Amino acid sequence: MREVCIFGVGMTDFGKFQDLPIENLARTALLNAIKDGNVKPKEIGVGYCGNMLAGRVSGLYSCPAEILFEQVGIVGIPIIHVENACCSGSNAFREAWISVASDLYDVAIALGVEKMTGRLPAPLVREKNTMDGAMGLVMPGVWAIRAQKHMEKYGTTIEQLAKISVKNHANGCLNPHSQYKKRITVEEVMNSPMICDPLTMLHMCPIGDGAAAAILCSADIAKRYSQNSIRVSGVSLTSGTYEYLRDFTFHDLEKRAAEEAYEMAGIGPEELDFAEVHDCFTIAEVIRCESLGFCKPGEYPILLDEGKWDLAGDFPINPSGGLLAKGHPVGATGVAQIVEVVQHFRGTAGERQVEGAKVALTHCSGGTYKGDTGACSVVILKK
Amino acid sequence: MREVCIFGVGMTDFGKFQDLPIENLARTALLNAIKDGNVKPKEIGVGYCGNMLAGRVSGLYSCPAEILFEQVGIVGIPIIHVENACCSGSNAFREAWISVASDLYDVAIALGVEKMTGRLPAPLVREKNTMDGAMGLVMPGVWAIRAQKHMEKYGTTIEQLAKISVKNHANGCLNPHSQYKKRITVEEVMNSPMICDPLTMLHMCPIGDGAAAAILCSADIAKRYSQNSIRVSGVSLTSGTYEYLRDFTFHDLEKRAAEEAYEMAGIGPEELDFAEVHDCFTIAEVIRCESLGFCKPGEYPILLDEGKWDLAGDFPINPSGGLLAKGHPVGATGVAQIVEVVQHFRGTAGERQVEGAKVALTHCSGGTYKGDTGACSVVILKK
Repeated sequence: MREVCIFGVGMTDFGKFQDLPIENLARTALLNAIKDGNVKPKEIGVGYCGNMLAGRVSGLYSCPAEILFEQVGIVGIPIIHVENACCSGSNAFREAWISVASDLYDVAIALGVEKMTGRLPAPLVREKNTMDGAMGLVMPGVWAIRAQKHMEKYGTTIEQLAKISVKNHANGCLNPHSQYKKRITVEEVMNSPMICDPLTMLHMCPIGDGAAAAILCSADIAKRYSQNSIRVSGVSLTSGTYEYLRDFTFHDLEKRAAEEAYEMAGIGPEELDFAEVHDCFTIAEVIRCESLGFCKPGEYPILLDEGKWDLAGDFPINPSGGLLAKGHPVGATGVAQIVEVVQHFRGTAGERQVEGAKVALTHCSGGTYKGDTGACSVVILKK
Repeated sequence: MREVCIFGVGMTDFGKFQDLPIENLARTALLNAIKDGNVKPKEIGVGYCGNMLAGRVSGLYSCPAEILFEQVGIVGIPIIHVENACCSGSNAFREAWISVASDLYDVAIALGVEKMTGRLPAPLVREKNTMDGAMGLVMPGVWAIRAQKHMEKYGTTIEQLAKISVKNHANGCLNPHSQYKKRITVEEVMNSPMICDPLTMLHMCPIGDGAAAAILCSADIAKRYSQNSIRVSGVSLTSGTYEYLRDFTFHDLEKRAAEEAYEMAGIGPEELDFAEVHDCFTIAEVIRCESLGFCKPGEYPILLDEGKWDLAGDFPINPSGGLLAKGHPVGATGVAQIVEVVQHFRGTAGERQVEGAKVALTHCSGGTYKGDTGACSVVILKK
C-alpha cells in the first residue's frame, strides 16, 4: 500500500435548507473541492459517495452517486455509492483511500452528502419492526441509558454533560459552516425540553442538510496539485454489536477501530493535537473519547472541568462545533470532519484555529435501528 | 495488485417468495458459500453487500450489510453496503476483489441480495419527478425504442428477438435455481400481453427475490481452501450517459467496460467459452453482446439463427437462463452470474454444463430512473 494525500476539500454550509435538493448540496461541495484542489474532473479516476437517505428522502434509490457526480463532469469512471449509517461519509473516504493506496488509481474523490429535511420517513423517528423500537429504545433512549450508567458508575453530573454542548456551541460560533452559531449556557441546556431523562434537547445534535468532498492522490504526485497536501496515516472501519447487556459506558467498537488506526499511523492518542469526534449526544462525546483512548474511562468529565478539551486547551475536541453545533447531515459528517482537519493543518481555520496542529483524528460511529449492530470508523491525518 | 481467486460460492433459488424476508435470503446464500468454501466466518477479513432496495422495501435503510452478515457470524470486520442499481452485486464483487488484490485482506466476501416482492414502492413503476418518466420513458419504453431502432437499422425481426427468450427459458429449465422452469415457444412470446410495442411481456425479465455470495482470497493461499479455485482475471466498472440522441443500437458504456476487462485479462472476446449477459429484455442481450464485442453490430440476430449462442453452440450466452428465465433480484444478479461461471468451471452445472469451459465473462448494466446516467460492470474469470 502506498502513501495517500488529501489535496482538495470543499463543503456546503450545514443547516435546514428545505428548498435545496440533494443535487445542489452535492454540486456545491464537489465544485468547492475541485476548485480547492485545482484539479480537472477528467483527472479523477474513481468516485465514492457516502449517503444514507437519498432513496427514501430524495427519491434517488438507484445510482444516486452517478447522478450527483455527473453534474460536475465526473463521469465515465467507476462511481460507487456506499451506505453505512453515520459512517457513510467516512466509509466513502475509506474506499477512495484504498483505491489510491492500492495503486489502482492516482486520484480519487470522496463525497458525503445528506438531505434530511423535506419528507422525513416515519421509521426514522420510530422503528416499529424490532422489539427495541417497540420498547422505545431509539437513539435518545439508548443514549439516556448510557448517560445514566456513566453518572452512576463515575459520578458524572448532568451539568458536566451540559458543558459539552456549551463548549461545542462556542466552537460552532467560530465556524462559518455551522448549523448553529449561538453561544448557549449550562442553564439553557438544562432548561431545554426534556427528551429522555436525563437528556434535554440541547444534549442532542440536530438533523440537517449538507455535503462535503475530499480529493485524494498518491503521495508521489501530490506536489502537482498542492504544496501543502495532508497525509492519510491511519484508516480503519469495523463492525460489531453494541454493549447491550454488557458495559453501557464503554464502546469496544471504538477501541478496536482506534487501535487499528493508531497502529497503522504508528502513533498513540497522546500524539494527537485535536480530534473531531461523533458527538451525536453530549454523553456520546464522553464515552467515545474515553473508548478512543484520549483519557481513562470516567475521566473525560473531570478533564472537561479542567478545560483540557476546550479550543484553548491541551487537546481540543470538536473545534468545528461537532455534530451538536455544526450539525449532522448523516452522510456528510465523516467527510466534513476531514475538511475541518485540513483547514487546521493549512492554518485557515480562522478564529477556531488549533495553533500548530500537525496530527489529528476523526471518528464516526453508526448504528442500525435494529439496535444490535453497527459500524465505527477512524481516520488519522498528519500535516 | 496480486492475483485473486474465488473459492466458495452459494446462492438461493430465485423467485417470488412473498413471505421470505431479506434476512433469510441473505443467510441462505452466505451459509451456502461458507460451506462450499470450507471457510470459517472468522477467517473473512472484509464483507461487501450489493443491494438496491433494502431501505425502501424491507425497511433496512441503515447498515443492512451489517445486519445481514452478522446473522452468520461475519462481524467485527469492515462491512460495507454498496448500491449501483443492476450493478450492485457485481459492484460488491469488485470492491471485494480490490480488497484482496490490494493486499489489504487475504479473504473477502461479496453478497448480492434483493427482496422485491412485498411492498414495491410506486416510484419503481413510474418515476414522476423527471421529464423522461413523465413522458413514459421508463425501462420498457427505452428498450422498445432500442428494439425498433435495431430492427430499422439491421432488419432484425421481432421473431428473432422472441427466440432469445425461447433460448434463455430453455436454459433456465436446466437450472434448479431458476425462477421460471418452463419451455416457451416463439408464438407464446409473440402472443403474450403487449407491454410497449414491439415488446410483449415475455421479452422482459421478471422481478423476484434472491441472494448469492462469493468468497475470494489471494491466489497464494487458495490451495488452503480449494483445489479448484477460479481466477479473477479482469474486473471493470464504469459509468456514463446512455445513448439518447445518439445511437440507440450500441452502448459505449459496455464497449469501454469490456475493453478494460479484456486488457486486464490479456484476452479478446474470441477466447471466451461462454458469457452471462444482462438480458433484462431480449433486445438487451442483442445490443449488449454486440457492444461487448462478441460479434459485429447487427450480427447477433443472424448468428442466433445459426445457433451460435445456444447451449450447444459455439458461444453459449446465458446458460443459466439469464435474467429472462433465471430471474433478476437486482442486487443478487451480478454475484449469481459469478456463481454460475464457477459451477461450469467445476463441471457441476448439470444438464446445462458448457463442456470444457475455461474462460467466461459476466456483465451487468444498471441505469437510474433519471434515465440519463448509469453503470456497467464486466468480470472475466479463468479456470
